[in-house]
Amino acid sequence: MIILGIDPGLAIVGYGVIEYKGNRYRLLDYGVIRTDSNIFFPQRLKLIYDELSSIIDRFNPADLAVEELFFNKNVKTAIQVGQARGVEILAAINKGLEVYEYTPLQIKQSVVGYGRAEKRQVQEMVKILLNLKEIPKPDDAADALAVAICHSSCLNYKDMFKMK
Amino acid sequence: MIILGIDPGLAIVGYGVIEYKGNRYRLLDYGVIRTDSNIFFPQRLKLIYDELSSIIDRFNPADLAVEELFFNKNVKTAIQVGQARGVEILAAINKGLEVYEYTPLQIKQSVVGYGRAEKRQVQEMVKILLNLKEIPKPDDAADALAVAICHSSCLNYKDMFKMK
Repeated sequence: MIILGIDPGLAIVGYGVIEYKGNRYRLLDYGVIRTDSNIFFPQRLKLIYDELSSIIDRFNPADLAVEELFFNKNVKTAIQVGQARGVEILAAINKGLEVYEYTPLQIKQSVVGYGRAEKRQVQEMVKILLNLKEIPKPDDAADALAVAICHSSCLNYKDMFKMK
Repeated sequence: MIILGIDPGLAIVGYGVIEYKGNRYRLLDYGVIRTDSNIFFPQRLKLIYDELSSIIDRFNPADLAVEELFFNKNVKTAIQVGQARGVEILAAINKGLEVYEYTPLQIKQSVVGYGRAEKRQVQEMVKILLNLKEIPKPDDAADALAVAICHSSCLNYKDMFKMK
């Protein structure tokens, strides 16, 4: 099964594509989509939508796994990133993917086995599980791979995490 | 010139389509797109995107005018509605519309001539300007028509209101 993980954002969207088969992982691709703040906002949304759509076309993943958004102070930022996340989810649903959502706690728990793990520990586990020489860069791409791995380990009860 | 106005939302999206020519208005359509909270969130986004896209196909507006989002307390709601608004803007940009954004104050100022006008006064002016027998219902549709009218009165300096 092919899984697309994304770390949602506006200026930078992390993505990671993995294949999970017989308890083994194969890394297919990872990276980030960047949109410059000089570009008008609607065009930034379109850029993200178009790039994600073409990544989906290339790898044909079955599921999208995405991190839940949390903001505790800046409502303006929350709205900005929220708008981008809406477009990211739409790209997936328009290509027929199922969409699943995980909290940072669930991701750490599933990748490291410990919900309060440090970012660095999560990245180390991503490196080990995907059999990489280095930790994937930048952080947004590593985070996207982490949520994809998290989803792979929840497949047996994935309905619990379907985005409602 | 044909203008699409929308009052962004997730459960209910108001829309209004007007033609503005030689200082006169013609009402082409108005209404709301509703998405039931029983439907999974990604499907709600798709519903909104598909319905807005088909409204745009039907009337071929040149510009989208949309109200700025303001939230002062509930960040969770801000993110939810933000995600829907992102999809609404994407529908417009994917059809080649230019996107403009107005604050509630600018809309009241432009439609009623007074930035602190009551909702009811805005609705009365919408009725009068569009030569309607009744105030358009529901409120979300009337708000969408108001932002479209606001945009029509800003056409000479519309670059100021282009969504950046």
